[in-house]
Amino acid sequence: MTELAEQITRMGQAAREASRVLAKASPASKSTALKAIAEAIDGHRSHLVAANYKDLELGQAKGLATPLLDRLVLDDSTIDRMIQSIQEVDALADPIGRLEQTSIRPSGISVGRMRVPLGVIGIIYESRPNVTVDASILCLKTGNAVILRGGSEALSSNQALVQCIHRALAKADLPETSVQLIATSDRAAVGHLIRLSDYLDLLVPRGGRGLIERINSEATVPVIKHLDGVCHLYIDRSADFDKAIALAVNSKVEKLAVCCALETLLLDSITAKYILPVLAKAYAKHSIELRGCDRACEILPEIKAATDEDWYQEYLGPILAVKVVDDLDAAIRHINHYGSMHTDSIVAENQASVWRFLREVDSASVMANASTQFADGFEFGLGAEIGISTDKLHARGPVGLEGLTSAKFVVFGQGHTRDRSQTS
Amino acid sequence: MTELAEQITRMGQAAREASRVLAKASPASKSTALKAIAEAIDGHRSHLVAANYKDLELGQAKGLATPLLDRLVLDDSTIDRMIQSIQEVDALADPIGRLEQTSIRPSGISVGRMRVPLGVIGIIYESRPNVTVDASILCLKTGNAVILRGGSEALSSNQALVQCIHRALAKADLPETSVQLIATSDRAAVGHLIRLSDYLDLLVPRGGRGLIERINSEATVPVIKHLDGVCHLYIDRSADFDKAIALAVNSKVEKLAVCCALETLLLDSITAKYILPVLAKAYAKHSIELRGCDRACEILPEIKAATDEDWYQEYLGPILAVKVVDDLDAAIRHINHYGSMHTDSIVAENQASVWRFLREVDSASVMANASTQFADGFEFGLGAEIGISTDKLHARGPVGLEGLTSAKFVVFGQGHTRDRSQTS
Repeated sequence: MTELAEQITRMGQAAREASRVLAKASPASKSTALKAIAEAIDGHRSHLVAANYKDLELGQAKGLATPLLDRLVLDDSTIDRMIQSIQEVDALADPIGRLEQTSIRPSGISVGRMRVPLGVIGIIYESRPNVTVDASILCLKTGNAVILRGGSEALSSNQALVQCIHRALAKADLPETSVQLIATSDRAAVGHLIRLSDYLDLLVPRGGRGLIERINSEATVPVIKHLDGVCHLYIDRSADFDKAIALAVNSKVEKLAVCCALETLLLDSITAKYILPVLAKAYAKHSIELRGCDRACEILPEIKAATDEDWYQEYLGPILAVKVVDDLDAAIRHINHYGSMHTDSIVAENQASVWRFLREVDSASVMANASTQFADGFEFGLGAEIGISTDKLHARGPVGLEGLTSAKFVVFGQGHTRDRSQTS
Repeated sequence: MTELAEQITRMGQAAREASRVLAKASPASKSTALKAIAEAIDGHRSHLVAANYKDLELGQAKGLATPLLDRLVLDDSTIDRMIQSIQEVDALADPIGRLEQTSIRPSGISVGRMRVPLGVIGIIYESRPNVTVDASILCLKTGNAVILRGGSEALSSNQALVQCIHRALAKADLPETSVQLIATSDRAAVGHLIRLSDYLDLLVPRGGRGLIERINSEATVPVIKHLDGVCHLYIDRSADFDKAIALAVNSKVEKLAVCCALETLLLDSITAKYILPVLAKAYAKHSIELRGCDRACEILPEIKAATDEDWYQEYLGPILAVKVVDDLDAAIRHINHYGSMHTDSIVAENQASVWRFLREVDSASVMANASTQFADGFEFGLGAEIGISTDKLHARGPVGLEGLTSAKFVVFGQGHTRDRSQTS
């Protein structure tokens, strides 16, 4: 084993040990730790900003693109938002140890489910240092130990944040190894982490397609995947036109580069001719390039024709694919075929259409008369999110506290024995 | 692609198509199908028994072991039990489309979760033909299409059962491809099935360690694993001695070859000297061989010494490992280290001990003062089970209807758009 592999293995062992302590930690001690993290971050603002400055300088020297540098910045307002996140997660009910669905069975035993931590979670992420805090507090609240692997471009910032977290853990009498940061820019570390199946119960990769694909093919640890967000808005023939236009514009332009931004607009053929010309003007104001199907191009001869590839595209930028479809059925078929099962919305007044869309579109988040831009853990009431799952198993959509726990069966008897000749 | 690979792929495509229909099927039509399956099985008893006779003859000719032949038998009593299972699953509430946890967020949108089918499920299993029915009805009830790969030794029985199911599906106007059986004994079929990730959403392998390990290393489809049941009963110093003895005996002997049978008995050192001699006599009546740690052998000099390997053993037979431990902490440590996270039970009157055991033992089913033999879907109230998961993600323990569904986020707005400058 290389020195690095040994180091990652030791981190795994330490995390496993810490997870045993965290699993039985009281809600009070976890809350003490969360409050202490907020205090430590608040009390070390200048230290955090200085560490971040080092990352920014290095990033500029390396020629990082401006959007990447922007996401890297730690300033008073991003620090305020971190502290707000911590307070919100602290205010959520502690899920661990909660007994649910308990009932007495014909045999006389009581059977229920208990929420418990998963154990040890690994997170792989890029740039934004706030993920360091979000991931740590969600894992802590759910009694999980966490191993963080942030991007090398944010190493100093992440180290400074983890120092704050360690101070807070010590204050709450919880092991510092509850939160560990892999503090090397050696990319081989990721390779070791994703094969640490003896010590890791879940891996959450947050990053580009390249990272996800590498993890898909190499990881032996269970993974919650976050793939593309090829999000759709479908304007039904029963739509309120004003709502439809407001939602179509907001879903696209509120933020262009987020995974819940609109990428393909679908319109019912009966109303397309009324709505599309108005919409085209609205999009033009935001410099959005439209790429249309044949029928869309008939209504808007000035726009570019879309190719089949456009229906699969996550542009994350000022381009929008537009397709006119026969009806609701065709819209649902299109989304289930070309979409990425992330977030899709319908604009409709007809309740039958709304419910068919909500039931039949096979995506993590389905919406009616709401902007796709709402699809995140904060807006959904999870306090924060550790990622957005486009998988179907375990966790779908924004992953908050619940996705970091599992439910085991709990049985209470009073000396009950089983006699199969009686029961079956 | 080989002909077999093409055939499996076509089955996957057909299942995907069927799953779209099933996902929107009404509870009434699914219930009609379930009732019709029970009727068809009841009405074709002689046909089923004749098909089963063919399997039994072939099995005998091939020299199958008696326990395997026993599990293969379809007779009036096993058919009665199948019909009972169908009626129980039919009586359960239909989980699909259920809205949970809906709340109004500060932005004004309502956010909830909706239970939806996973899509297409693959099941790989051996001998027992009742799995063909259990898997089909659980998948049907949850709106999933299923591809069944039963053991070649049960091929005729499984074909006859699936014929009954197809008749019933036609009666309920649901696609026959909702339930498909891979009707070849070519083992390469499994290899194709476990890599059918374009069409399969979940794979449930039920079988020996060999099958599970092959699937672990080769499958590209998400898997719910069912590994060994190295189950423990811990007799605490606060235990009621009579209950302890009854539970220790029942947990082991009620059925020896099931995954929830006791494999290692742990006893608190303070009470071991009182309980072990009485227990040894009770076990002797059932011809159970004991293998003890040093301290157990001091109390019972006549028994064999256990080696470290014994603590990992799933005997599935008349052998029991016995260990005397210092206290509750040592018991929990032993279980979390040597156990298989399947089912573990404590005998104790002290409530603090009970709750520490239930919380800290990291197994799919944890019990207090109840026999480990209770760990199955029928006893837990799931109606039937498609397997028992020793994984932590998605489903733990017996997997019934809930494990075959996922919960997607559903958002209701009235034209709500997002304005990040307002909310964060």
